[in-house]
Amino acid sequence: MKVGILGGGQLGRMLLQASANYVVETFVMENDENCPAAHLCHHFIKGNIKDFDAVYNFGKNLDALTIEIESVNVEALEKLESEGVKIYPRPSAINIIKNKIKQKEFYKQHEIPSSDFVITQNQNELADHHHFFPAVHKLAEGGYDGKGVQVIKDKSHVGKGFDEHSVLEKMVNIKKEIAVIVAMNDKGETAVYPPAEMIFDPVLNLLDYQISPSQIPEKIYWRTEAIALKVVKELQSPGLFAIELFIDDEDAVWVNETAPRVHNSGHHTIEANYCSQYDMLWRIMLQYPLGNTNAILPSAIVNIIGEDGYNGNATYQGLNDVLKMENVFVHLYGKKQTKPGRKMGHVTIIDKDHNYLVRSAHAIKKLLKVIV
Amino acid sequence: MKVGILGGGQLGRMLLQASANYVVETFVMENDENCPAAHLCHHFIKGNIKDFDAVYNFGKNLDALTIEIESVNVEALEKLESEGVKIYPRPSAINIIKNKIKQKEFYKQHEIPSSDFVITQNQNELADHHHFFPAVHKLAEGGYDGKGVQVIKDKSHVGKGFDEHSVLEKMVNIKKEIAVIVAMNDKGETAVYPPAEMIFDPVLNLLDYQISPSQIPEKIYWRTEAIALKVVKELQSPGLFAIELFIDDEDAVWVNETAPRVHNSGHHTIEANYCSQYDMLWRIMLQYPLGNTNAILPSAIVNIIGEDGYNGNATYQGLNDVLKMENVFVHLYGKKQTKPGRKMGHVTIIDKDHNYLVRSAHAIKKLLKVIV
Repeated sequence: MKVGILGGGQLGRMLLQASANYVVETFVMENDENCPAAHLCHHFIKGNIKDFDAVYNFGKNLDALTIEIESVNVEALEKLESEGVKIYPRPSAINIIKNKIKQKEFYKQHEIPSSDFVITQNQNELADHHHFFPAVHKLAEGGYDGKGVQVIKDKSHVGKGFDEHSVLEKMVNIKKEIAVIVAMNDKGETAVYPPAEMIFDPVLNLLDYQISPSQIPEKIYWRTEAIALKVVKELQSPGLFAIELFIDDEDAVWVNETAPRVHNSGHHTIEANYCSQYDMLWRIMLQYPLGNTNAILPSAIVNIIGEDGYNGNATYQGLNDVLKMENVFVHLYGKKQTKPGRKMGHVTIIDKDHNYLVRSAHAIKKLLKVIV
Repeated sequence: MKVGILGGGQLGRMLLQASANYVVETFVMENDENCPAAHLCHHFIKGNIKDFDAVYNFGKNLDALTIEIESVNVEALEKLESEGVKIYPRPSAINIIKNKIKQKEFYKQHEIPSSDFVITQNQNELADHHHFFPAVHKLAEGGYDGKGVQVIKDKSHVGKGFDEHSVLEKMVNIKKEIAVIVAMNDKGETAVYPPAEMIFDPVLNLLDYQISPSQIPEKIYWRTEAIALKVVKELQSPGLFAIELFIDDEDAVWVNETAPRVHNSGHHTIEANYCSQYDMLWRIMLQYPLGNTNAILPSAIVNIIGEDGYNGNATYQGLNDVLKMENVFVHLYGKKQTKPGRKMGHVTIIDKDHNYLVRSAHAIKKLLKVIV
């Protein structure tokens, strides 16, 4: 079977690591021939994943195709789908998700709880909706990794907003941020991973680390699972999805965003769960039974991020100290160049003791720095 | 860092899967460009690993080199070592191990317990040693996966023996067969994995499955560990080694053979141990600290072997039934062609309950068949 991946970053890299457990011929398309996934596939094709012809020509002789980023040429995927290539997720689902307005409208239409929103075309319209503040302003298309998102606390922030097609979402009083990964196969069978919880630095308001399974009351646990499942069922697409949710201070659960692909919040499943998110997507594409989403042990993820003030050839300060720790798994993405905020790798910690996970995550964050 | 692997089979494949957790440029040499590891490295070089020039040219621009099979050109490795390329294991260790006579002499010289032996040049000399029977006759060089080995129970079996340079080893009254994996880094620091136990089919006398950690009394456990460590320390070489041992009916421990590389008996460490044997070898070659050899959970390995009577394009009967099992990990090596006895993959089972592991291993052996 011939399977292609659009995008060659770290998600593609880990997907290809998992592919080598099965018999499958792999293809990757990406603009950069030194990207993290380029050397781990049978066939690397240099090309622009946003270009119709490039994507169509890449996919036309494949049995199946998946993505590791949403910003791909969906028209080409639609044509490929109409010609019989299986696309995971379906182009119709990517279309909904890659546009943040369509995504919000989708939640509303299917009565999936998500914060109120209005659509804006420019900063003037944004200013008109001051009764809506505090709110989050998001570009309809093209945002990535926090770019294209601005928090608008009050009128003084309007100048930070976008002068383009955007969505303004009412701010939720967030108590916890949760991510739930859901798998659906061609038959419509589903499998749900235990929720993961993002822990933020209270001072910097940056993602600090992630713990899985999340320590939330059982009632909320089931609610997050039910809502995440509903998102995927309404998208009517096989594939692997990460649903990011907020739990507010009254324990209501709100969908923030959905990613129609393997996701940063699922890295821990490589070591901490019986079936990793990467293995799961291969099972779906190769028409194998869905895997077991249960955790073997609780886990934490610390992202390895390019340190502020450093641009250039990456070195990993403190790496040996982390590698000496007894139950950590280091993943470096093979990126030669670091820059502030760039995702360079992650560390997974597994342990039955929640406090130990928290302490280790803090220790790793202190020890490990990507500098030049 | 540039690291090469001589040989592109399943051991190379799994080594390369693990390499993608680090920043390393990988090179593989093998005669077959469709071999299991060919597509998972940065640079695949088609070439004969037994040929001096091929191995020397492959290695001369690398920082480090390892092997996934012993039958490589050791003279080329010696020259590369003299020119500053790090070889894991050292050519001197490969030289001892790849020749079964030298290997036995090495054990004797260093007072490592191993069964008595004599050297034979032909069947006549074999017949002369009938007082030594029952014994095992092994070709000095070139044996692999049970080939080049004959059990000589009595005089009537002499015709099965080899008419070449061989070693005749006195038969041990085997109660258990154990494998211990030992890692040693450049500084001489060592790490030892818990012993794995091979379980044989009492009727067919074929390896049935493997359980790890082995259920042996603590005293024997420590003895196997001490002997395995001594083998590696006397070999005076960094690298990863698998020491196969017999426990006889009087609980004495004997070294059978050593493999100077990642080994079939260590496949379970991918999921069942904190640091897999593959990860460990990368840590050694990349000058990282040694990893944690402890088991996360006990495990079993079932090898997926080409069924007797089937030659041709492999299909995996019963694969879906195995993939439905809750705590199994399937590894297929991507070999298109099956033949009787060919290693096509393996299945690892992890569980805290030893009886469950045994039952699952039996179930998998019954379910999964490689046919055409």
